[in-house]
Amino acid sequence: MLNFAMFGAGRIANVHGQTLSEHPDANLKYVVDPFPDAAMAVAKKFQAKVVDADVVFADSAIDAVLICSPTDTHSGLIEKAALAGKAIFCEKPVDLDIDRARHVADIIKETGVLCFLGFNRRFDPTFNALYQDKQAGRIGNLEQLVITSRDPSPPPVSYIKVSGGLFRDMMIHDLDMARWMLGEEPVEVHATGSCLVDPAIAEAGDIDSAMVTLKTASGKLCHINNSRRAAYGYDQRIELLGEKGMLQAANHKENEVRYLGSEGDISEKPLHFFLERYMPAYRRELQSFVDSVTEGNKPDVSIDDGVKALELADACYQSLKSGQTVYL
Amino acid sequence: MLNFAMFGAGRIANVHGQTLSEHPDANLKYVVDPFPDAAMAVAKKFQAKVVDADVVFADSAIDAVLICSPTDTHSGLIEKAALAGKAIFCEKPVDLDIDRARHVADIIKETGVLCFLGFNRRFDPTFNALYQDKQAGRIGNLEQLVITSRDPSPPPVSYIKVSGGLFRDMMIHDLDMARWMLGEEPVEVHATGSCLVDPAIAEAGDIDSAMVTLKTASGKLCHINNSRRAAYGYDQRIELLGEKGMLQAANHKENEVRYLGSEGDISEKPLHFFLERYMPAYRRELQSFVDSVTEGNKPDVSIDDGVKALELADACYQSLKSGQTVYL
Amino acid sequence: MLNFAMFGAGRIANVHGQTLSEHPDANLKYVVDPFPDAAMAVAKKFQAKVVDADVVFADSAIDAVLICSPTDTHSGLIEKAALAGKAIFCEKPVDLDIDRARHVADIIKETGVLCFLGFNRRFDPTFNALYQDKQAGRIGNLEQLVITSRDPSPPPVSYIKVSGGLFRDMMIHDLDMARWMLGEEPVEVHATGSCLVDPAIAEAGDIDSAMVTLKTASGKLCHINNSRRAAYGYDQRIELLGEKGMLQAANHKENEVRYLGSEGDISEKPLHFFLERYMPAYRRELQSFVDSVTEGNKPDVSIDDGVKALELADACYQSLKSGQTVYL
Amino acid sequence: MLNFAMFGAGRIANVHGQTLSEHPDANLKYVVDPFPDAAMAVAKKFQAKVVDADVVFADSAIDAVLICSPTDTHSGLIEKAALAGKAIFCEKPVDLDIDRARHVADIIKETGVLCFLGFNRRFDPTFNALYQDKQAGRIGNLEQLVITSRDPSPPPVSYIKVSGGLFRDMMIHDLDMARWMLGEEPVEVHATGSCLVDPAIAEAGDIDSAMVTLKTASGKLCHINNSRRAAYGYDQRIELLGEKGMLQAANHKENEVRYLGSEGDISEKPLHFFLERYMPAYRRELQSFVDSVTEGNKPDVSIDDGVKALELADACYQSLKSGQTVYL
Repeated sequence: MLNFAMFGAGRIANVHGQTLSEHPDANLKYVVDPFPDAAMAVAKKFQAKVVDADVVFADSAIDAVLICSPTDTHSGLIEKAALAGKAIFCEKPVDLDIDRARHVADIIKETGVLCFLGFNRRFDPTFNALYQDKQAGRIGNLEQLVITSRDPSPPPVSYIKVSGGLFRDMMIHDLDMARWMLGEEPVEVHATGSCLVDPAIAEAGDIDSAMVTLKTASGKLCHINNSRRAAYGYDQRIELLGEKGMLQAANHKENEVRYLGSEGDISEKPLHFFLERYMPAYRRELQSFVDSVTEGNKPDVSIDDGVKALELADACYQSLKSGQTVYL
Repeated sequence: MLNFAMFGAGRIANVHGQTLSEHPDANLKYVVDPFPDAAMAVAKKFQAKVVDADVVFADSAIDAVLICSPTDTHSGLIEKAALAGKAIFCEKPVDLDIDRARHVADIIKETGVLCFLGFNRRFDPTFNALYQDKQAGRIGNLEQLVITSRDPSPPPVSYIKVSGGLFRDMMIHDLDMARWMLGEEPVEVHATGSCLVDPAIAEAGDIDSAMVTLKTASGKLCHINNSRRAAYGYDQRIELLGEKGMLQAANHKENEVRYLGSEGDISEKPLHFFLERYMPAYRRELQSFVDSVTEGNKPDVSIDDGVKALELADACYQSLKSGQTVYL
Repeated sequence: MLNFAMFGAGRIANVHGQTLSEHPDANLKYVVDPFPDAAMAVAKKFQAKVVDADVVFADSAIDAVLICSPTDTHSGLIEKAALAGKAIFCEKPVDLDIDRARHVADIIKETGVLCFLGFNRRFDPTFNALYQDKQAGRIGNLEQLVITSRDPSPPPVSYIKVSGGLFRDMMIHDLDMARWMLGEEPVEVHATGSCLVDPAIAEAGDIDSAMVTLKTASGKLCHINNSRRAAYGYDQRIELLGEKGMLQAANHKENEVRYLGSEGDISEKPLHFFLERYMPAYRRELQSFVDSVTEGNKPDVSIDDGVKALELADACYQSLKSGQTVYL
Repeated sequence: MLNFAMFGAGRIANVHGQTLSEHPDANLKYVVDPFPDAAMAVAKKFQAKVVDADVVFADSAIDAVLICSPTDTHSGLIEKAALAGKAIFCEKPVDLDIDRARHVADIIKETGVLCFLGFNRRFDPTFNALYQDKQAGRIGNLEQLVITSRDPSPPPVSYIKVSGGLFRDMMIHDLDMARWMLGEEPVEVHATGSCLVDPAIAEAGDIDSAMVTLKTASGKLCHINNSRRAAYGYDQRIELLGEKGMLQAANHKENEVRYLGSEGDISEKPLHFFLERYMPAYRRELQSFVDSVTEGNKPDVSIDDGVKALELADACYQSLKSGQTVYL
């Protein structure tokens, strides 16, 4: 049985609290959050105790920390947990600042502490099966990758202002997926974007619609498109073209009911958003983390994966501003 | 918190043990089974205690019994539990003998004890959404119903011999579904069948392929087809035709990966069998039972539903033998 | 180049006129119809001449007659054409009276004239590919067959009164499809039906909704369901279950556009009715007939196929009336 | 009845010969081609006469010329036909040289002769319905466009060498589709590509895999991906994202047969190549041309559309070479 302390008490903390409560080998002991009411609510729901961070790091019974507090606290908490020798599960991103992200990645290397980065989509049953099929050679050599990733509606502009922007907050998941699927690092990045959904996002200095092209050293091509709005729900698709064929990952639906009437042939829309679509992925990423801690294996997603995705996001902003291809 | 005792320690007991362990308001206290090893294994897995039946009925702390022991014990256990005043969750069928089934249904009526029958498919997310759509008037008046229900492969012939036969063991689920979807009782039953999958099934006196037609007083028509074999997995589909259109419930798949290559356009097969397909339904039927016990409501599926489905199964055998339509 | 005379000048005559005009080896020389205006319109459209029937049978330049006049004229025209030595393409049914149908089938046998019956669905690209796949052993031994056949809306009651009724007019196509797909003759027939679409159809002595079950000597089972109404268009589907898997023929759509919005995931409905769905089949059945005439082969669909489908339709009416299984 | 002369006697000449032979208001009078055997074969097949170009331009009975000879003859023939006052149907591209293309576009403007450019995909039933749905406001304001266009296998390298390269020969269709769907001109072009299919293509100085991004003045984004190889057939898809939803155009299949077995759930692949997929489009584009000639309307696709697509293809090569965004 692994004892966990969780940093954070927001929406994603409730997801992780749920997966921890269902896991037979995990026990949520502590919840840490500066807002006492939120901390108490989460702690009560999952039968844990609210404590200060110091208690967590001093308690030798704590095996692992799960960091899902605001982004600007991630790297600091990773550092403290690493120095306290706790296994670390951290939500993406490591940090919005690449230098700070690299700094804590170095600390992880020095301390040898296990640090797992929460790129949950790698654990989605469909995306994972897609990856396994590719690895098994079903399409031969991969040539083209197309990633479609659209949110049902934009977050509040107040959130966008502190989020690091579309590339660091939203597309970073797709950049990680691209690295994972391509199996080699992109060496060329081109990004373009527009503000088409809400002018307030442009006023906040960001875009809400983006198209990015990546190219690897061996010539593999990747296209990613993002929008902060999809009237039909959370649109999460991936397509791989290889020498022997194509693999596609389609959206998930709530049920398999189909209606045919004078209006047409109508099926369910994609699941509404990430909580609905990725709940199985959250369960499976926790399992992966628990396995790594228990068996002493390397994490399936490392802090380096977090750093590299952030480097690509930064390159996207550079390309967006200059209009030019960025060579890495 | 409701305290449960579970009768049975086989495959389906493991399913109910799992759903009980996940439910926040349910506690599995006792496991009862004549085979000590099996009982111990289930009890250990779900942190319960192995006891004799007498202990269960004498323990006032037990709120409910979950009966998933062999079919020939169902009606006896229902009777004892009813007399002991325990809420009852019983797997289908009530009994293979219609008189005995009616007898215990009478006892339930007299004692007023809550008795829920485990026709799990009513709680499948797709079938339930189909039903809700129909109830909401999406296709207007229902005219035709087509139920396809095929197992991936036949059970051992030893099981078939004690199962009550295809109509009482397998199609009984579809007969319940037909009653539920039609919203009125069938008054005409015609059945035909063959042994096409395995000659040993014919030697055991049963069929493995069947087609049944039902008709209600208002003229609604229903077709059910069953096979003990489907090379592509568990085939569970329903189609409703109404004046305004059609509703279809398609099979569920493990993931949404699609491959296109020289061999064709290939998607995942349906989920393999009932444990895979109906796990969400098992969770939801337990929730329904817990809600009924807690809130004092009538059960969503009653012992009368069990009796009526058995009457239809008996009529199917009568029609199969005579070649004639049976009028109810 | 084959010279044709066409009997009839209605809707289906326009279909055959069109396919004849497109065929490089066919020439429509004459049109015969008791209504001069209709005859003239069709003749003008396809550059033919209006004549009396006698002219057709006396003209040695006429190689073939295409009979698409009203049903009650079919057997008489077949007889005359056979005696005149013309190759015959006749729309279904041969006759509504089984004795008369058998009589002209005998004449065809005696004269040795080529007589092709227009069961057009055998030539539909999807149904034909389904049949070829079955013949090639893709599902191994066929066990169950399910045919769904629903018209978008009922014909005028005046037509129904002279049509021979649902089984002889509408389901006869499905009965032919069943015989073709099963590859052996049904020996048991059970039929039930209702009037759910329009009470005027019941007043005219017919049903508008039907379910039929067929069984062959080897135990293959077949279900056919018909409705005179499908709000979503012409519903023409077939499903084959065999030991190695299932083959399904889905409906055809006008285009492959799909819309996803807040209302759902919406595709095109099936093509509206038989003219839209079966236009490729009409072209291909003409090709089959021309090939038989040119190469002296047996027809792909013979007058015996027409007689046997009619026998099954008659058995359906017998079962509908008696409620009993009819043994052939 | 319009009299046509056709320049060219290759594969696409056979397509146009076929559509002309089926059209009730078109008559193919002459075929012109420097290879007498090829010319004779086409002329014989469609009952036309082989003549020299001079005969065509001197014959006042000729209403229209259909140019499907090699690309390097297009602009010269357009010029001569324009000066002879013949209506012109020309296969894409106008010319591989942008100056020459602009020159003949000017001549068309000066002479006022009707000149229709054969961007056949605009007439595909699915793409056309997609466009109509967008125009009707089904997705509101268009924000993103994704075009997937992959050939089943590359043409001979000898052809690639004279083709103008992937952007001018293959993607030019997609660039036209982009302009048509976007409804405004791209002002930014970024292209990248690789040679992944066949090294001989790289040796010939071209690429076989490409990803292009376009942006319009109002910020609409467009992605096009091309490959010279798709093991599963001709992949022709379009996706439109708008404020109210998404519209997708899927591939066409030969039939609607679906097989489910132990290997999976298998449907037909997309139609193999352009002759199979776009035959209905070829018929409809001829109809559009005939309508324009007959009714004196502007052509649905003009020579200016040909010039503008070529400008975009040239910009793609410029971006591919420089790695930079090209601003138009």
